Amino acid sequence: MIVIAEKLNGSIPTCAKAIAERNADYIRDIAKKESEAGATFIDVCASVKEHELETLKWMIDLVQEVTDTPISVDSPDVHVCVEGIKLCKKPGLFNSVSGEGDKIDVAFPIIANTKWEVMALLCDDTGIPKTAAKRIEVFEKVMAKAKEYGIADSRIHIDPLVEMLCTSEDGIAMVVEVMTYIKSHYPKVHISGAVSNISFNLPVRKLVNQAFCVLAMNAGMDSAVLDPLNQDLMGMIYATEALLGMDEMCMEYIGAYRQGIFGQKK
Amino acid sequence: MIVIAEKLNGSIPTCAKAIAERNADYIRDIAKKESEAGATFIDVCASVKEHELETLKWMIDLVQEVTDTPISVDSPDVHVCVEGIKLCKKPGLFNSVSGEGDKIDVAFPIIANTKWEVMALLCDDTGIPKTAAKRIEVFEKVMAKAKEYGIADSRIHIDPLVEMLCTSEDGIAMVVEVMTYIKSHYPKVHISGAVSNISFNLPVRKLVNQAFCVLAMNAGMDSAVLDPLNQDLMGMIYATEALLGMDEMCMEYIGAYRQGIFGQKK
Repeated sequence: MIVIAEKLNGSIPTCAKAIAERNADYIRDIAKKESEAGATFIDVCASVKEHELETLKWMIDLVQEVTDTPISVDSPDVHVCVEGIKLCKKPGLFNSVSGEGDKIDVAFPIIANTKWEVMALLCDDTGIPKTAAKRIEVFEKVMAKAKEYGIADSRIHIDPLVEMLCTSEDGIAMVVEVMTYIKSHYPKVHISGAVSNISFNLPVRKLVNQAFCVLAMNAGMDSAVLDPLNQDLMGMIYATEALLGMDEMCMEYIGAYRQGIFGQKK
Repeated sequence: MIVIAEKLNGSIPTCAKAIAERNADYIRDIAKKESEAGATFIDVCASVKEHELETLKWMIDLVQEVTDTPISVDSPDVHVCVEGIKLCKKPGLFNSVSGEGDKIDVAFPIIANTKWEVMALLCDDTGIPKTAAKRIEVFEKVMAKAKEYGIADSRIHIDPLVEMLCTSEDGIAMVVEVMTYIKSHYPKVHISGAVSNISFNLPVRKLVNQAFCVLAMNAGMDSAVLDPLNQDLMGMIYATEALLGMDEMCMEYIGAYRQGIFGQKK
């Protein structure tokens, strides 16, 4: 599983406070912990109303002081991402583009001849499509553009847009349909998503998040935005990989346990 | 989910001690708690070397003192089950038969014209088959016998025999294949299993059990032998039902939470 660690995000109150106070130790501490917990990318999102790029730079510099783990440069503003990736010492994840406006045409030429990976959300100028067919349409547009700019499938992460379960009438059937389509037509594309969105407004969210993760992995999800410090979630991911036949004799599961990724009191 | 509560079993050391000491309070207390936690059946298994039927009778009587929840009469000896079901005030679950010896021909005529349900394990005189095809063969034999004796599909629970993951090379693919076959050919048959067998010899077993439960439910499992006092597992089951589209707007999930089935400190 490709783990995009989510805790350095100004939309999280404790992180917003650290950003407002320019608390460098907080940023460094989280980055170090996320890296040690097995993050593949450390997501960095300023989520501030003013001076976003300056704030992002301050965060990226701090993260790079304490870890070599690649950074996921995260902003709803594609131009901020374009500037942000220039601050990174090594290629990471451009997070994100979508079918909205000219995002793709701004981002893809910049990363075309690099090793940067990219996250694409399946929404466009009409918003978040309500049907699987419409989301697949957006997906195919993204893939056509990727082909045009020569970006390999294996550098692309697709977020089919996980929405809250509490207002759903058929559970996650629609998102599973989108994932299944991607997996069968573009097996090298990474299927991703922000796991915790699923449990919005429900009690005991961790159980819904964990169960969702298992079902999404069964449908092909191999990348996710989540908290790697959540040991039960991380353990559940290793367990699911073993159950799905991706971890012979559970060697990875047992190894991750011994490494302290899960099952430890912290 | 049909919950077959597993804690009154002499193969569990604390329960074995209570049986040896004829600790009636222990048996009554567990039965009451399992019932309150949402058990559909309370499994009662003596697991003693001598005087099994007498011990089973003592246990069944105690359970019936404190709860109306139907009993799962559990013994590896089909003749003990035959005597055991006569002690119950209402129909429950005959646990179990299999393709071994004459178990089915002993059990099926007894329960034919009753409301008793029955658990059938997919093994026979050759042991536990190693392939899905062989288990499906045993399953079809069970179903042919059920038809012969006029036992409706909806009264049958099939345990495809969950084996430990730690020695598996392809995860749970084989058991999922059996479940998928049953679900598509006999949609009214209940697919069951002893969930915790999957995690034998692995660390942090609860995570493997939970992830297995989610994947098995996705493959059609709607009945399981488990501990209903394990709140995270129960919550995960409710969450999975919602994710699989079996619980519109999460009303059951939220209801079970409010009822204290999960998410409570106990």
